[in-house]
Amino acid sequence: MEQKLERLRFLLGQAADLAASQALLDWDQQTYMPVGGAEDRSDQISTLARLLHETVTSPEVGALLEDLKPWAESLHPDSNDARLIRVARRNYDKLTHVPARWVAESAQASSLGHAAWEHARANNDFKHFEPFLQRIINLRQEYAGFFAPYDHIYDPLLDDFEPGLKTREVQQIFSTLRSEQVKLIAAISEKPQVDDSFLSQEYPDQAQWDFGVQVISQLGLDWQHARQDRSAHPFTTDFGIGDVRITTRIDAQRFDSAFFSSVHECGHALYQQGIHSALRRTPLAAGASMAVHESQSRLWENLVGRSLDFWTHFYPLLQQRFPAQLANVSLTAFYKGINRVEPSLIRVESDEATYNLHIMLRLELEIALMEGSLAVQDLPQAWNARMHEYLGITPPTDSLGVLQDVHWSASLIGYFPTYALGNLISVQLWECAEKDIPDLGDRIRQGDFAPLREWLRHRIHQHGAKFEPQELVEKVTGSRIDPHPYLEYLRNKYGAIYGL
Amino acid sequence: MEQKLERLRFLLGQAADLAASQALLDWDQQTYMPVGGAEDRSDQISTLARLLHETVTSPEVGALLEDLKPWAESLHPDSNDARLIRVARRNYDKLTHVPARWVAESAQASSLGHAAWEHARANNDFKHFEPFLQRIINLRQEYAGFFAPYDHIYDPLLDDFEPGLKTREVQQIFSTLRSEQVKLIAAISEKPQVDDSFLSQEYPDQAQWDFGVQVISQLGLDWQHARQDRSAHPFTTDFGIGDVRITTRIDAQRFDSAFFSSVHECGHALYQQGIHSALRRTPLAAGASMAVHESQSRLWENLVGRSLDFWTHFYPLLQQRFPAQLANVSLTAFYKGINRVEPSLIRVESDEATYNLHIMLRLELEIALMEGSLAVQDLPQAWNARMHEYLGITPPTDSLGVLQDVHWSASLIGYFPTYALGNLISVQLWECAEKDIPDLGDRIRQGDFAPLREWLRHRIHQHGAKFEPQELVEKVTGSRIDPHPYLEYLRNKYGAIYGL
Repeated sequence: MEQKLERLRFLLGQAADLAASQALLDWDQQTYMPVGGAEDRSDQISTLARLLHETVTSPEVGALLEDLKPWAESLHPDSNDARLIRVARRNYDKLTHVPARWVAESAQASSLGHAAWEHARANNDFKHFEPFLQRIINLRQEYAGFFAPYDHIYDPLLDDFEPGLKTREVQQIFSTLRSEQVKLIAAISEKPQVDDSFLSQEYPDQAQWDFGVQVISQLGLDWQHARQDRSAHPFTTDFGIGDVRITTRIDAQRFDSAFFSSVHECGHALYQQGIHSALRRTPLAAGASMAVHESQSRLWENLVGRSLDFWTHFYPLLQQRFPAQLANVSLTAFYKGINRVEPSLIRVESDEATYNLHIMLRLELEIALMEGSLAVQDLPQAWNARMHEYLGITPPTDSLGVLQDVHWSASLIGYFPTYALGNLISVQLWECAEKDIPDLGDRIRQGDFAPLREWLRHRIHQHGAKFEPQELVEKVTGSRIDPHPYLEYLRNKYGAIYGL
Repeated sequence: MEQKLERLRFLLGQAADLAASQALLDWDQQTYMPVGGAEDRSDQISTLARLLHETVTSPEVGALLEDLKPWAESLHPDSNDARLIRVARRNYDKLTHVPARWVAESAQASSLGHAAWEHARANNDFKHFEPFLQRIINLRQEYAGFFAPYDHIYDPLLDDFEPGLKTREVQQIFSTLRSEQVKLIAAISEKPQVDDSFLSQEYPDQAQWDFGVQVISQLGLDWQHARQDRSAHPFTTDFGIGDVRITTRIDAQRFDSAFFSSVHECGHALYQQGIHSALRRTPLAAGASMAVHESQSRLWENLVGRSLDFWTHFYPLLQQRFPAQLANVSLTAFYKGINRVEPSLIRVESDEATYNLHIMLRLELEIALMEGSLAVQDLPQAWNARMHEYLGITPPTDSLGVLQDVHWSASLIGYFPTYALGNLISVQLWECAEKDIPDLGDRIRQGDFAPLREWLRHRIHQHGAKFEPQELVEKVTGSRIDPHPYLEYLRNKYGAIYGL
């Protein structure tokens, strides 16, 4: 058994190295690669992806997992080895359910779909994208079929991002959320709007960069094992626990965009840096799920970064850096400005109070597409109707509506709900952290983030992907994913800001 | 045959992608990787190296090469397919001659040897390095044995860097060179020394960077397919023909170091960028040999970059950028300063006239070590004796002598002569270019490098690794590698500068 486990670890280590190398090829493409490198890069990424797939789905891995099964069942179910074998088994089963023919077709459909979407968005021409999206939907329906029987056709897709989570659970969570958030936004819209015009001024690039680095250093990002670069779209990636990369994009005419994106990506990076070193070079050296990962980025971005406690410490430092821009803006005015609520067209620019509605809309539409109850050709109309229902606004063009996000063009169906679930989990964790760290607010007002960071490391980060998301959330908070703490948080926060 | 060739191309393409990914892992390590990423990176590089080795030496590749042999022999011997099969066969044969056990032992010996060398150099303690170097020499002797019979034990090592070249040829070339270069240096040393003190002033980092970029852009580096970054030691690497990376290191107290290194690396990069696109993702998408590669970097660095014609165009621009430093230095004084000859201890800082002697010394010592006629323990003494004989100086410490270069600690025995051979080839090519482009000097004085660049592309670059170095040199110049043009060039150039 010892030998078989060692061999399995060798093969999984090879897979981890291939995945890390592929991640570096992608990071480089988004940060430094000259444009002319694209053709070679695409070959390199697809070769590594193929070798990774061959490694993880090899008959040898299958046989080792089978042979190790009885032994793994004799271990403590929460031990690293038991969990490693369980996760490797899950990956193996999922990947070997899918024929190579489908993988190739789907890769092609995504590649063509992405190009068609770019064209369609640039030209406000949904009709151009329609047949490509139809093909992607058909392939995703076929994919779900490989995992039949299921309770819901969307389950196998969701499971790729949220292991173990079911569509019905997500729908229940979101139905509670929807009506309450719609009500809250309506109430806010009747109150006088807060001013955030001071955020839109000249904030020089380098000064923004430096302030962002100062803050995420203080949050605890370990630069011995991380770096920040620039890219068109901010993201976090890693090449193992020891090397985490975040990126940012600075708009010199606007303060908040780069700043909160840096703090957001720092939250992802702290998660990766906090994974226990015993899980290194295994499939457990990753987040528990996309939603749990997003709970970390959102926690640092919103619960910490958009809080009055946080700015009580940092606002004087920010004013020192940008006296011309902020000397005459009070802390309270600044705090209100960065928390302004306003229904808007674009998800990635939306505020905390409206964000989840953007997600729900997408979730409902993609479930309907998968079920076949919504035709692709009717998608723009359905999008606009829901935008009006939830946010009271209607996109003037499809480019500002149904075509705004890259996800569907890249076959990422099942991904959207993880953003909203991350918000919910972040507040559930926050409530627990507040109980365990009675002086949490004081510490943050003093600029001391160590207690919170270490709490998260201990409760969440160190476990990596050992636990499924619901299992982990329940382990830490005592309950499964629950929308009520988030709603309570929104009511309290925005009640105070808008005087509801 | 069509199908077999396609399958061979598929496997060689996979190898090219793995090699490019490995090169990116290395580039990133030397440019941007946070220090804490080293442990993961070492695993990633060794996994990709192993998969690359497995791909190139797979029994399937062996069988395909065997099956394709008769067909390849029916092709024109200079056709891409015939050459591809020939080079793939050569790689396959060389790699499969070496047992996996030896590969692992050698990798370990190099890794330990490198660490021991770093310690020895930092502490001027050759004794510490001695047993590690002994192990490396023993392994290299064993390596040569895998290719017995040979004319000379050094042949199989040399052949790894210079396909087809023999030790006896190199020794003959160098024996001609040695006495003539020693005489030239002695003659120079009797003349008044030229002044280069103006090179050692404050030259601000960014201004140096910008001037270097301006110059290599004008030489013709295609930035759509290249970039320049910073690293501790300048180098060129590539991830395919479409993405070539050079690095530089700027010393703000000294002008010439970064500038000539940028031009040198640009020469390597132009070679890689000039390879015909039909050779993409094959083992032919590389230089013909290390010496031919070095001929390109040296040609641009020395024959172009240290020429009076070149500075007739660029010196006014340089003076505009650095008026405080250079306004009072004439073009002639500048030209003489950047060509100052002075025997010195360190190879990488030595001038054109003395450089080859540093190489000959190393070549003679490593041949003696391989033959067993020199014991490792006697190496420092032999080094110092030759330094005195060739350059008239004696290293005060081993750190400034036998321990200065990384190569031996990394098992790179057989590599040193390629530097000097590159110098010789560069002048042979230059003589031909001058014949084919009658107004070459005029064009360079006008800052027009297109004729030279296109000549090199046509004669050298486009062929990639299709031809062996001697074959290629003979094809272009009508003669094999020959020291006489280089000697003639040195005599003319330094005769004028020093008034010999």
